[in-house]
Amino acid sequence: MTDSAAAATTTPTPTDPLLARFVEIVGPGAVLTTAEDMAAHMVEPRGLFHGKARAVVKPATTEEAAAVVAACHQAGVPMVPQGGNTGLVGGNVPFDHGGEVVISTVRMTRIRALDPVNLTATVEAGVVLADLQAAAEDADCLFPVSLAAEGSCQIGGNIAANAGGTGVLRYGNMREQVLGLEVVLPDGRIWNGLRRLGKDNAGYALRHLFVGSEGTLGLVTAATLKLYPKPVATATAFCGVSDLETVTALLRHARAWSGDGVTAFEFMPRFGIEITCRHMPGCSDPLESPWPWYVLIELSSARPDSAASVREDLEGLLGEALEQGLIGDAVLAESLDQRDALWRLRESMSEAQGFEGGSIKHDVSLPVSDIPAFIARANRAVTAAMPGLRPCPFGHLGDGNVHYNLTQPEGMDKAEYLAQWDAMNRIVHDIVVEMEGSIAAEHGVGRIKVGELERLKAPVELEMMRAVKRAIDPDGLFNPGKVVV
Amino acid sequence: MTDSAAAATTTPTPTDPLLARFVEIVGPGAVLTTAEDMAAHMVEPRGLFHGKARAVVKPATTEEAAAVVAACHQAGVPMVPQGGNTGLVGGNVPFDHGGEVVISTVRMTRIRALDPVNLTATVEAGVVLADLQAAAEDADCLFPVSLAAEGSCQIGGNIAANAGGTGVLRYGNMREQVLGLEVVLPDGRIWNGLRRLGKDNAGYALRHLFVGSEGTLGLVTAATLKLYPKPVATATAFCGVSDLETVTALLRHARAWSGDGVTAFEFMPRFGIEITCRHMPGCSDPLESPWPWYVLIELSSARPDSAASVREDLEGLLGEALEQGLIGDAVLAESLDQRDALWRLRESMSEAQGFEGGSIKHDVSLPVSDIPAFIARANRAVTAAMPGLRPCPFGHLGDGNVHYNLTQPEGMDKAEYLAQWDAMNRIVHDIVVEMEGSIAAEHGVGRIKVGELERLKAPVELEMMRAVKRAIDPDGLFNPGKVVV
Repeated sequence: MTDSAAAATTTPTPTDPLLARFVEIVGPGAVLTTAEDMAAHMVEPRGLFHGKARAVVKPATTEEAAAVVAACHQAGVPMVPQGGNTGLVGGNVPFDHGGEVVISTVRMTRIRALDPVNLTATVEAGVVLADLQAAAEDADCLFPVSLAAEGSCQIGGNIAANAGGTGVLRYGNMREQVLGLEVVLPDGRIWNGLRRLGKDNAGYALRHLFVGSEGTLGLVTAATLKLYPKPVATATAFCGVSDLETVTALLRHARAWSGDGVTAFEFMPRFGIEITCRHMPGCSDPLESPWPWYVLIELSSARPDSAASVREDLEGLLGEALEQGLIGDAVLAESLDQRDALWRLRESMSEAQGFEGGSIKHDVSLPVSDIPAFIARANRAVTAAMPGLRPCPFGHLGDGNVHYNLTQPEGMDKAEYLAQWDAMNRIVHDIVVEMEGSIAAEHGVGRIKVGELERLKAPVELEMMRAVKRAIDPDGLFNPGKVVV
Repeated sequence: MTDSAAAATTTPTPTDPLLARFVEIVGPGAVLTTAEDMAAHMVEPRGLFHGKARAVVKPATTEEAAAVVAACHQAGVPMVPQGGNTGLVGGNVPFDHGGEVVISTVRMTRIRALDPVNLTATVEAGVVLADLQAAAEDADCLFPVSLAAEGSCQIGGNIAANAGGTGVLRYGNMREQVLGLEVVLPDGRIWNGLRRLGKDNAGYALRHLFVGSEGTLGLVTAATLKLYPKPVATATAFCGVSDLETVTALLRHARAWSGDGVTAFEFMPRFGIEITCRHMPGCSDPLESPWPWYVLIELSSARPDSAASVREDLEGLLGEALEQGLIGDAVLAESLDQRDALWRLRESMSEAQGFEGGSIKHDVSLPVSDIPAFIARANRAVTAAMPGLRPCPFGHLGDGNVHYNLTQPEGMDKAEYLAQWDAMNRIVHDIVVEMEGSIAAEHGVGRIKVGELERLKAPVELEMMRAVKRAIDPDGLFNPGKVVV
């Protein structure tokens, strides 16, 4: 592996003792200090937040990471942990006051162990998700977390964000994959909690505090994760459905028919398919006539004899669904290429919205059966507030997770539209909270939802969160201003 | 329902203002103060710990529970939450100084909601596990946590202990079933965290702090739990196996063969089967000749068409296992009665040991493939320390969980033997920790393992646990002296 960090030419200002200390710890090539060198670390993927930092430091080992954190702690300097920098809520970039140090895990890329017998892998925080998926597959196993950014997001970030994605219905969120963690605590001490155990009740489940804490409690440096037997066969279908109530009924039918063997159940609106096919290369509507809603269903099985039976299952499931009026039309993927093409429709939907102007995003969850009522109610509220608005709700219906994205009215000025971000959020989040949902389903809180969380969460829960934050990070040095303030 | 609490005749001493306050809150019948009335609440099932208390209070609602806790908090009186009082580590009974108040959830027995569409149930802490299982079954669902004490243990206690049992391999521990919690915090405030969501990243995962905290952070009053589609078919077999390495190979074969469809995989030694058949009514060895080890395997499926296929699967799995030399003999349950008889062998094993004299218990976990080496090593160490000792290791092999129980040498004085409890624990736990296992797999720490936890856990982890305890229970009023000191 080429060590790109070591190849960089940045030399930190030797007069700043903290930067000099970083250089001692990680070497000069792994300390970035100029605006140019740091640029890629200062902006999040949507460009909503730009920050500045005193330095970006790239430790290569846990010990180096601990020494970097200890130096910052001693100097009272706040730190922002950063993985692949693909997070969508601004938790991964510093504020613009420039006083923070970004600690990047990009050099911590070792897969320390992969155990197909016990179905566990111990990996460092900087391992790219797709690299872990590939390593697991090489060992005839599956690492089931899968999401659009998997080619660049890192395991440490997936843990910090409790990543969701398309495999949650069958395998759970990132949280459910974490058996153990290694964490550098805010004062620089290392907690080695790398357990490989199916059961462990020896004290509080501290790992669960760090999963989903978005870098506010410490720096995750490594994790022991669950693996699964590799599926032998997968079958994928794309269905047209008449209304959203029927989409939820189709989910129930699919779960029952398959004995809870549904691996993915993604829903999309007609508007989303239209703009995706219009703007994204290689995307086309696989069905003959338009439908108000679309569902991508996937079944898979790890049974050795399931190569043919999974496809037969899906055919039977769809035949019965057609008979019951749960779907209007459907196409089954006949090849891996066709499967990829169907998934591309779903995975490109977010990007496609960019071609239609501004998009105000929500990442919410509700009990599955309440989703039709939620979308109807939210659509009414937002279009009443702004006529011509084009809702594009899609996502992981099986998990009750809706990406409730709002494309701007045609012809409106984009900046003027995006200025309504907070106002739209408040309208949608109020409905979500009233319906007992979550305003941060899988992307987290970060910086973008701190205010909404404070506005909408029960005071007793905010106080508990603050008490936990103080207990683990008493000086408030880890990712301050994110998640809870 | 007869309210047995209301039928009791105890009247608290009116001169004690705290007890008078309890009577105001819950009524006189729900406050026990005499040694006689409190007796059942003062001793844990094995009789290892006896305690005393100032009172046993039985709130019927969350609001009553909160008022009781607030009164104790104001008076600075420590509290011991108690459910079905079936815990095996002394966490559920008070100390013998008599200054604590036991808060029993026995009257909080409402199933508040059961939602077969979204597969969730919201239940109060005092619901007996078997009652939830039955209610789920009535709704054509499964609540998968199952353990020997299910007829009397309560959901609140299952959550506090993060109960394990026999369904973990397929469905996970109690922790994995908990979507949301309602908790009375140590100062009497109510935290309503009863969410029904598949994804929720709006802040820290506070529920996971309470799951497994054994009543040291607050009083769980209700929970929203996951349900699953009810299995249509189950097939059960009892196998004789030549050695422990082969037992672990059989597990791998069974998981691969069934596409990860193994619901239970329990292992037992010949000695355990012998004493169980000798002492327990209705238990007999179903195999023709003796084997060093036995395995109970269960497959199940929720597929509507699986009634016959699950049994065929198990037959195929066993046939192949026989051919590969993974099993020496096997019997399949032909009826529900036969299935119950096979399970009785496993479930009675702990009780059977009582007939052979003293039994020193360990509840440990390791990576599955390390279990043969662990048992060989531990057997050598304990029999070297005490010749004639009769190890009876059994349990949930699929979870890496061994009940490493040690039956006394024949003819030895029982009390003399039990006096060696701590010494034996140290020998076994040292090996477990060296092999990266847990000394508290599914029964928890309670009172019995506090010292061992302090001796064996990394100081940094103990300090984090103490920091969390102080953050949530700053006055140290909830179950003090348990889990972490």
